[in-house]
Amino acid sequence: MEKSIKFSNVSTHFYFDSSFKQVTKIADKKFLVVITDEHIFKAHPAVFKGLNVIVLKPGEEYKVQATVDEVIDTLIKMEADRKTVLVGVGGGVITDLTGYIASIYMRGIRFGFVPTSILALVDASIGGKNGIDVDRYKNLVGIIRQPSFILHDVAFLQSLPQNEWENGFAEIIKHACIKDAAMFKQLQQESLAGYQKDKKKLSSLIQRNALIKTKVVQKDEFEKGDRRLLNLGHTIGHALEKEYELMHGQAVAIGTTYACHISEQLRGFSQTADVVALLEQYQLPTYASFDKQKVFNGLKMDKKREQKEMNFVLLDKIGKGVVTPIRMQQLEKIINKL
Amino acid sequence: MEKSIKFSNVSTHFYFDSSFKQVTKIADKKFLVVITDEHIFKAHPAVFKGLNVIVLKPGEEYKVQATVDEVIDTLIKMEADRKTVLVGVGGGVITDLTGYIASIYMRGIRFGFVPTSILALVDASIGGKNGIDVDRYKNLVGIIRQPSFILHDVAFLQSLPQNEWENGFAEIIKHACIKDAAMFKQLQQESLAGYQKDKKKLSSLIQRNALIKTKVVQKDEFEKGDRRLLNLGHTIGHALEKEYELMHGQAVAIGTTYACHISEQLRGFSQTADVVALLEQYQLPTYASFDKQKVFNGLKMDKKREQKEMNFVLLDKIGKGVVTPIRMQQLEKIINKL
Ligand SMILES: NC(=O)c1ccc[n+]([C@@H]2O[C@H](COP(=O)([O-])OP(=O)(O)OC[C@H]3O[C@@H](n4cnc5c(N)ncnc54)[C@H](O)[C@@H]3O)[C@@H](O)[C@H]2O)c1
Ligand SMILES: NC(=O)c1ccc[n+]([C@@H]2O[C@H](COP(=O)([O-])OP(=O)(O)OC[C@H]3O[C@@H](n4cnc5c(N)ncnc54)[C@H](O)[C@@H]3O)[C@@H](O)[C@H]2O)c1
Ligand SMILES: [Zn+2]
Ligand SMILES: [Zn+2]
Repeated sequence: MEKSIKFSNVSTHFYFDSSFKQVTKIADKKFLVVITDEHIFKAHPAVFKGLNVIVLKPGEEYKVQATVDEVIDTLIKMEADRKTVLVGVGGGVITDLTGYIASIYMRGIRFGFVPTSILALVDASIGGKNGIDVDRYKNLVGIIRQPSFILHDVAFLQSLPQNEWENGFAEIIKHACIKDAAMFKQLQQESLAGYQKDKKKLSSLIQRNALIKTKVVQKDEFEKGDRRLLNLGHTIGHALEKEYELMHGQAVAIGTTYACHISEQLRGFSQTADVVALLEQYQLPTYASFDKQKVFNGLKMDKKREQKEMNFVLLDKIGKGVVTPIRMQQLEKIINKL
Repeated sequence: MEKSIKFSNVSTHFYFDSSFKQVTKIADKKFLVVITDEHIFKAHPAVFKGLNVIVLKPGEEYKVQATVDEVIDTLIKMEADRKTVLVGVGGGVITDLTGYIASIYMRGIRFGFVPTSILALVDASIGGKNGIDVDRYKNLVGIIRQPSFILHDVAFLQSLPQNEWENGFAEIIKHACIKDAAMFKQLQQESLAGYQKDKKKLSSLIQRNALIKTKVVQKDEFEKGDRRLLNLGHTIGHALEKEYELMHGQAVAIGTTYACHISEQLRGFSQTADVVALLEQYQLPTYASFDKQKVFNGLKMDKKREQKEMNFVLLDKIGKGVVTPIRMQQLEKIINKL
């Protein structure tokens, strides 16, 4: 299925449920430069045959300027020019890097994404945010620019490690909570193993989630209103992710659990048990005896310049997220009561 | 004089004939971070008092990623955030760097320019192109993003070295040639020393030139048509600049001389003598016994992927530039005949 979606001044073309082979139809082979990482390259050697490929070391620690420098040197050696199309084939690290490099090389060349992790398929590849980390600051440097195309080929997922599946499903459950009660029900009736076995069901779930994120972002490309809904579970999640050795999805799941409880107190939310049950059904952590004071301090640090209030994503009901400003004092009380 | 000019989706506010002191009225002191270079900082210590200032080493060789890294580290230490406004006070190196850093820091913060060289006042600060050099490739990395404001304070020019004045006037004469016959006449009646002595005349000349570039860029922000007129003298100029140790303006002046002769042959242009006389009046080189084959090879190298034809800026008459495709074969013949 294909779909063109217009952002502020460019269109992103979606190739859902497609095949990587299609890329050479989107752009002439001689103009394509593929960027991927070693995990993906080694797991799928055949698909890269005959293409110009730059293979990077995998992992968040390579989402840094040194990698950008290295790729730019390689592009120069390859004589990449304004006609070149960069294609990021990988998880969010690869799509963030590819989008960023394409945005600055020769003041911007065309680029597309073939996301290969659940998280990249339903989240990282969408919205045009790209960039790199600087020291301990995530995504401190980057720009907003939309890809020309996003192509889904679920065949890549065959090699995705189990914990990365769970990681990505935290964002899917997040989407269900803030925007899609029907999908929440569907997720309750299924399981991760079920989706992993049924390519068709999986493809359609991924597409549905990609469109949820797209719609939210499109309404609010430069992040003032609705886009903040996507932060459900992320405010506390980020504080936890820094303090403890957690995967992003695990931290988000715990953060979502906290957000449900705060929603109970402030918005009369009554479905915490359902959300917690669904997270656990997908092997995600929920209640965890973390140091609440530490969480709270983490939150304060994060936002040191807007101390008094914090925008928090809460739930009115499953399928309906709301951005709510909470005073820090009040937040501390609520968190300590939990 | 103030003026707001709309580009694709932002406005740039111009403060012509203004004073640097105004910056603290444009943005609160506590949000301002000024970027400048040692030459300017040392020549005007008083004006920077009480401001957050990052002072860089001067020169094109510092328009590189290492400087970007250094500035970003400093911004982090200063706790610069989305409310920060970067202000580049300097020549084109400083404005290019400042615009680029502001465009990528936290995915883009606000920035403004206070150009302090003639070249930056009439050219480099305008148009939103920014970026850095990579190895021997000028401006290989960058993005297009317009500044929030541009402020002119000609008091800075008191310390500008004489050769930098001449350098900047090459672009002023270029503007006259492609767009403004009346200004060409005015320049004929004046001299560099005259402008240097008369602040009012100088301010108005600078403003007129800034508006010429603005108008050309605005019509064509993403460079397809009219913007290319600004390349008069630059195609051959760049080839010369690389081969010989010339200042940019000198190379452009020689390139303009060549372009006049080619215009005679292809467009019936008849005012070469006037252009050459004006360039010389402003201490710029014109005829120089450079190796024509070398120039031609330089041109070929520059454009290796569009070999057959080259877009050249020629003159129909003074004040009317035209972009003309010329076949490389024909170009070689013409250059050898000169
Ligand atoms: N731009 C955005 O809007 C946005 C949104 C969310 C997250 N992100 C970014 O995304 C990144 C996280 O995404 P991620 O979890 O996909 O990161 P990732 O790219 O590091 O992928 C996770 C791991 O899975 C591996 N992998 C990916 N696909 C595979 C496959 N098909 N087979 C085998 N191994 C595979 C990778 O090599 C890596 O080891 C973070 O850097 C985050 O900042 C960006
Ligand atoms: N972005 C664009 O559209 C654009 C257009 C043209 C040129 N440029 C860039 O601009 C740069 C050239 O501009 P430039 O010639 O202004 O470069 P520059 O910044 O290097 O300035 C030239 C010299 O003059 C000094 N200087 C500047 N103002 C001074 C002052 N008031 N007093 C004392 N010294 C002063 C500088 O320290 C430097 O030594 C190049 O990097 C070029 O690529 C960009
Ligand atoms: Zn997330
Ligand atoms: Zn120039």
